[in-house]
Amino acid sequence: MFKPERMAILAEGKLGVITSKTAACMVRYKPRQVVCLIDSTKSGRTAEEVLGFGGGIPVVASMEEAVALEPDTLLLGIAPRGGALPGAWRGTILEAIDHGLSVISGLHTMLEEDAEIAQAAAARGVRIWDIRKPVFPVEVSRGLLLNKTGRVLLTVGSDCRTGKMTVAYELAGFLNKQGHKAEFVPTGQTGILLAGWGVAVDRVPGDFMARVMEDLTLRGLSAAPLAIVEGQGSLIHPGYSGVALAMLHGCCPDGLILCHHPGRDKIRGFDTPIPALPDLISIYERAAASVFPTRVVAIALNTYDMSEQSALKVVGAAEDETGVITTDVVRWGPETLCRALEDFI
Amino acid sequence: MFKPERMAILAEGKLGVITSKTAACMVRYKPRQVVCLIDSTKSGRTAEEVLGFGGGIPVVASMEEAVALEPDTLLLGIAPRGGALPGAWRGTILEAIDHGLSVISGLHTMLEEDAEIAQAAAARGVRIWDIRKPVFPVEVSRGLLLNKTGRVLLTVGSDCRTGKMTVAYELAGFLNKQGHKAEFVPTGQTGILLAGWGVAVDRVPGDFMARVMEDLTLRGLSAAPLAIVEGQGSLIHPGYSGVALAMLHGCCPDGLILCHHPGRDKIRGFDTPIPALPDLISIYERAAASVFPTRVVAIALNTYDMSEQSALKVVGAAEDETGVITTDVVRWGPETLCRALEDFI
Repeated sequence: MFKPERMAILAEGKLGVITSKTAACMVRYKPRQVVCLIDSTKSGRTAEEVLGFGGGIPVVASMEEAVALEPDTLLLGIAPRGGALPGAWRGTILEAIDHGLSVISGLHTMLEEDAEIAQAAAARGVRIWDIRKPVFPVEVSRGLLLNKTGRVLLTVGSDCRTGKMTVAYELAGFLNKQGHKAEFVPTGQTGILLAGWGVAVDRVPGDFMARVMEDLTLRGLSAAPLAIVEGQGSLIHPGYSGVALAMLHGCCPDGLILCHHPGRDKIRGFDTPIPALPDLISIYERAAASVFPTRVVAIALNTYDMSEQSALKVVGAAEDETGVITTDVVRWGPETLCRALEDFI
Repeated sequence: MFKPERMAILAEGKLGVITSKTAACMVRYKPRQVVCLIDSTKSGRTAEEVLGFGGGIPVVASMEEAVALEPDTLLLGIAPRGGALPGAWRGTILEAIDHGLSVISGLHTMLEEDAEIAQAAAARGVRIWDIRKPVFPVEVSRGLLLNKTGRVLLTVGSDCRTGKMTVAYELAGFLNKQGHKAEFVPTGQTGILLAGWGVAVDRVPGDFMARVMEDLTLRGLSAAPLAIVEGQGSLIHPGYSGVALAMLHGCCPDGLILCHHPGRDKIRGFDTPIPALPDLISIYERAAASVFPTRVVAIALNTYDMSEQSALKVVGAAEDETGVITTDVVRWGPETLCRALEDFI
């Protein structure tokens, strides 16, 4: 791991709040480290114009244009489905290395293990950081959290890309500003980039996922009495449900924050329907019960693509339907959520 | 992969039906490939005397004694919790290599990646087969099984070591002998050893487990209209639940066979209680429902440590409690189970 100071972020063809999640989060939370975004389909505009935040950070058309702004690092800001290296990116990465940039990647394909890229980086003396490189003990969960002191909150979702990382990160930041002590526990590429530590749990072998969750959560609890753990995937996702259950059982959460994107009625890329919120709550609480009973204490809706009026409407409907405190943490801040956290702070 | 003809099987201090699962299964199903078992605490006896099957296969005290029987391969027949290489085994493995034996290991620690062992094997010209070496595409599930033709049965469990592999293997063998076509789909070390193909799903990174299940199940269905998939772990296991859910969603089973060891009321190594059978059925059926609804069609009890009378009693009690056909496949054969499979054969 190293700390980039001047990032050019690749989001070719995909720059957007949801479609380039990592890029958007770095612009939102670390704008001073971002010198430009690369997306030839939106070049000439600013981050603010495309994303709705990020001020004057320019969107440029190519690596060549980016280099003029003197970045020290290329960050791959898009996570393609599955996480393999798209062929078209290879040239961009090699070009960046050739210009003396280090490269940060959250892909499942490890750039360090790619002979051409690794050799180019070594020859040019730049660094490669594969954020998803799995670091894990070859050991199963010890169940240490079953008798933990300290409190744990986990963000869970109806699907991928519903705001689990953002809600956990925003909430931890807000609580700390309010004088409470809370530690954000990163479990995915963007969270790791933001916090500077963590493990991409989805890349850890099945048998060790719960153990890694135990280790990460214990580290969070050693820093603060409240650990706010970034969830991954969804219990109802045909591809990623195993990761979600390992996390739910692995971190022994005292409360869950259910993240949902109200526009969506099916899992992205599948025909699997997303059930109504009360059913989702029940699915999570029942799945947790056999190992460490917990409950959904709040709902975080992702209303980024709605008007204020529509957002208020879906939030009200969710509260009526579930009886659970609901808000959009990005739109209105985490304050409302804190009303649901009396047992935790 | 290679086919061992004369195996010496290491089960030091652990030889038993449950405690040395892999060793016991090879003795049960491939006795002609086993020249001896190594366990100094039970040496001088036969497999039959220790396990209750396996005839005159001798139990010997050391690698040195084993070598006198001219084995061609050392199989590590015990799976220690977590799967790492116990320090004491290193000497035994190196001794085997020194005597010209190939080595088969189902440990999570890859022997091929152990410099000392790999160098010794290369120098002596023998082979190393790490059964658990994960082979997987860096791609998520495509959901192809959601619209499959063909039928899929999955064995699931209340815990590890309840008989999931054995039940799937016995049932597939029995059906084929009866003239039906069924394919056993191996997902763990012992199943892979028996069938000669498969992937240890618990060693695959979280994001790709469901995809590997899809690939394995499709291979099974290409060989026969009924795929009988070996399950792993348990949905209520604090360490392994993620693997179990990825398998449940990944292979889209039309029916489940619930395996349980009636003596056990807690998950091995944890304080987590094992719920009553009707609750377990409900946990599995509910977890499956959001992706691919299925039902528990039969219960397979593992009564190896009971008298015939006690076994009959627990089977009767399970049927009364659940209304689901119940048997012990090893004790009485898979015939009773087939009464539950009218929709499948």
